[in-house]
Amino acid sequence: MESFKRIPAHIGIIPDGNRRWAQEKGYQKKDGYKYGIKPGFELYEMMIEYGIKEATFYGFTKDNNKREKEQREAFTKACTDAVELLSGKDANLLVIGNIDSPEFPVELKKYANRRVNFGRGLININFLVNYDWEWDLKNLIQNKCLRSADISRVDLIIRWGGRRRLSGFLPAQSVYSDFYIIDDYWPSFKQAHFINALRWYQNCDVTLGG
Amino acid sequence: MESFKRIPAHIGIIPDGNRRWAQEKGYQKKDGYKYGIKPGFELYEMMIEYGIKEATFYGFTKDNNKREKEQREAFTKACTDAVELLSGKDANLLVIGNIDSPEFPVELKKYANRRVNFGRGLININFLVNYDWEWDLKNLIQNKCLRSADISRVDLIIRWGGRRRLSGFLPAQSVYSDFYIIDDYWPSFKQAHFINALRWYQNCDVTLGG
Repeated sequence: MESFKRIPAHIGIIPDGNRRWAQEKGYQKKDGYKYGIKPGFELYEMMIEYGIKEATFYGFTKDNNKREKEQREAFTKACTDAVELLSGKDANLLVIGNIDSPEFPVELKKYANRRVNFGRGLININFLVNYDWEWDLKNLIQNKCLRSADISRVDLIIRWGGRRRLSGFLPAQSVYSDFYIIDDYWPSFKQAHFINALRWYQNCDVTLGG
Repeated sequence: MESFKRIPAHIGIIPDGNRRWAQEKGYQKKDGYKYGIKPGFELYEMMIEYGIKEATFYGFTKDNNKREKEQREAFTKACTDAVELLSGKDANLLVIGNIDSPEFPVELKKYANRRVNFGRGLININFLVNYDWEWDLKNLIQNKCLRSADISRVDLIIRWGGRRRLSGFLPAQSVYSDFYIIDDYWPSFKQAHFINALRWYQNCDVTLGG
């Protein structure tokens, strides 16, 4: 196990490229999502091994619901399947997303907006499901706090699939995050991706503006 | 003049690396800031030439005020000098920043929080001066809108100086921005930097989550 000068406390994961990966394989676009579950748990195990305290996975967003019905059903199922698997592991899960819209999967309501402990609780896992950055911020108007107020500042964001943008990922917690982009699609996750991200991050000059 | 398939309507400019540039030249860190003004106007001219409608320049932030007094004075002076020069050009200027704190330069108060037209008004220029992302968002609590509500969504953010982060730059307007990072320091601005950013941006797949 490699050692690093500095480890991020909280990592944001943007697992993009499932549809492009599926198309390259000759599958239908919707079929990409289910291949994103196994990589998520490989990464989960590595994060525990390296002592990461908190990780936020980008499930799907309000804007993603503009996609075709088959794709919507497929990414929603991948999210609920992932949580079912996680419930047999050692994590403290917090699901954040708009539960008042019909796109929020009913199976996940019991994990929404409060942290639920699984097993030995070795890592805090936040899962953004039917998340909407505007809904998150507008809660400041109604309730004087973010919907995602229980999610801490993100130190490092790793995005798969080559796009260089946040796509609405936790705008308040990402203000000082360092971004690491991986061109490979998420279902092609390799352990080296994560190790390379940590290698890069240890040399980032974290100043928070000072 | 090169033509592009698609041009960003609004570009965010993070002109970082002034201090590192100064140190490489054997100057004091504080001396880097004044060399950032000329590049800003070279870029301004290019943006008008290429039909960019709006640009937001990152001046300085509340967090930057943690730096040494000489540096603070130097970046504040660079901002006021830049605005004085801009007042002789053809732009509509909007300064956004916390004018109620002593770090806000009094000379710029007349341009704060309302757009002021200079000359033929060929481009909207937003200038973040003593800006604070938290102050911006917390206005949702007090006044039900962002402090930066008059600034539109940013399509492309170009950052000089190699860091891969937003450093608090307009969190709400940056949710779907594509990030282009230039390793050269800002005072080493070259026209090719901007052209390369536009070349890259024209091939970005802008989906807004759909």
